[in-house]
Amino acid sequence: MNHYCYINGELVPVNQASLKINDLGLLRGFGIFDYFRTYNSKPFMHHWYMERFFHSAKLMDLEVPTNETEIMYYVSELHNLAKLPDCAFRFLLTGGYATDSISVTKPNFIIISEDLPAYVQDRFDKGVKIISTEHLRELPEVKSTNYIRPILIAKQIKAENAYDVLYHKDNEISELSRSNFFIFKGDTLITPNTNVLKGITRRVVLELARQHFEVQERVIHIEELKQADEAFTTGTTKKVTPIVQIDNLLIGTGKVGKRTHFLQNLFNELIKNY
Amino acid sequence: MNHYCYINGELVPVNQASLKINDLGLLRGFGIFDYFRTYNSKPFMHHWYMERFFHSAKLMDLEVPTNETEIMYYVSELHNLAKLPDCAFRFLLTGGYATDSISVTKPNFIIISEDLPAYVQDRFDKGVKIISTEHLRELPEVKSTNYIRPILIAKQIKAENAYDVLYHKDNEISELSRSNFFIFKGDTLITPNTNVLKGITRRVVLELARQHFEVQERVIHIEELKQADEAFTTGTTKKVTPIVQIDNLLIGTGKVGKRTHFLQNLFNELIKNY
Repeated sequence: MNHYCYINGELVPVNQASLKINDLGLLRGFGIFDYFRTYNSKPFMHHWYMERFFHSAKLMDLEVPTNETEIMYYVSELHNLAKLPDCAFRFLLTGGYATDSISVTKPNFIIISEDLPAYVQDRFDKGVKIISTEHLRELPEVKSTNYIRPILIAKQIKAENAYDVLYHKDNEISELSRSNFFIFKGDTLITPNTNVLKGITRRVVLELARQHFEVQERVIHIEELKQADEAFTTGTTKKVTPIVQIDNLLIGTGKVGKRTHFLQNLFNELIKNY
Repeated sequence: MNHYCYINGELVPVNQASLKINDLGLLRGFGIFDYFRTYNSKPFMHHWYMERFFHSAKLMDLEVPTNETEIMYYVSELHNLAKLPDCAFRFLLTGGYATDSISVTKPNFIIISEDLPAYVQDRFDKGVKIISTEHLRELPEVKSTNYIRPILIAKQIKAENAYDVLYHKDNEISELSRSNFFIFKGDTLITPNTNVLKGITRRVVLELARQHFEVQERVIHIEELKQADEAFTTGTTKKVTPIVQIDNLLIGTGKVGKRTHFLQNLFNELIKNY
């Protein structure tokens, strides 16, 4: 692990980087982040990720202390220092150092290069089981640092041999803990469009899907899962990951659906040539 | 500001204390805290605060890496170093340094001594105005570090010349952003007992009140505010602070109520002789 990070204007090894303990991200959970990766050594759809990052910042009334051009310059520097063909970048923006432990000051801004998570071919080939829980993220449009729920439920996920957790509230499905949710009913692809963080992979996959399927962005009710022929999730590291089981419910035949497989191939083709 | 802190076994000046950037409190908002103060140089009701702190830790599945006796020893050391007759202590416990940015490891534990906030006599004498907003804290029984809502609403509070914000959800009142809520209807004192963080000052005031009033710990519906004769909030730094207005609604006569004033005196008497 030779990763470096950018922290308030400086490039330092990640394991030497620190924030003072009166940072509001730490004291008050007041922070946002974003995360993108490279394919073929090139940052993937970075403009869309940056757009989302700046949107989160705006909704939290936080000023990003630099601009996209400068950010991409530092991403490139960090990529060189990482000496890896492909890696991921985490962006973190907090409320800054508070003298009174509560008032936002000058935000602290950090970019960290990271190893990509291990690639598990089986998940893509055979699909995954997920569990569900009643929850709605506070401020769903903001990619805030609040991940209390997935951390608290991690043991249960592991115990049930599941991959992740699907959130629903008042009978409406929103998203997985860190990725978006889709179902196929016949040739119609459906994904929630409210109370979710709109992922970049979601956006790419929707563009690809529109050329081949009817697409509905709307509320999905829990009962609809029983009628779903296929399901999958999309995310920066999850790409298109088929979902074959939710709690005790098998989706469709309980195997990866052919339309999901088709979208997987379209997406994999796109990133291969990116 | 000559405050020191205890951080993972060491005493260091607060402004030299830091956590690495892969701390889960920072990256994932996964942290709890607590906060108590001294009166007459003695930690006030510290055993009850510590009980609550350990309870929060348990609900978050975090192990406090020390015990109450050792904590109180370090509180005493920090108090000496602060060279102040009275001060406050903030306890912070996070998910620790995560190598994968998400999995809880060995928690980081910090105790910080702090100046007490400025004493504003007017608030106690004339009462305060507060605003209300629809919100319910995630995991209300846990004193988590998540203060996104009060930080986001701080500008509105200031613009409306208010003191704090009262949360309600589905017509039920829970608590203020950092303190508990009470109303008097005649000689009956009512305070919510579900979906709230049960404050130590709340506990002390309830004990005092039971000797003089009928006490009901139960749900308070929003409509009841119109029938309230008096209202107040309790907290470690707020003590018993009268509330005379909520949004555009004057409580009772819009002046500090006599029963609230009576409880204020009881509480002030208790801390004077603590």
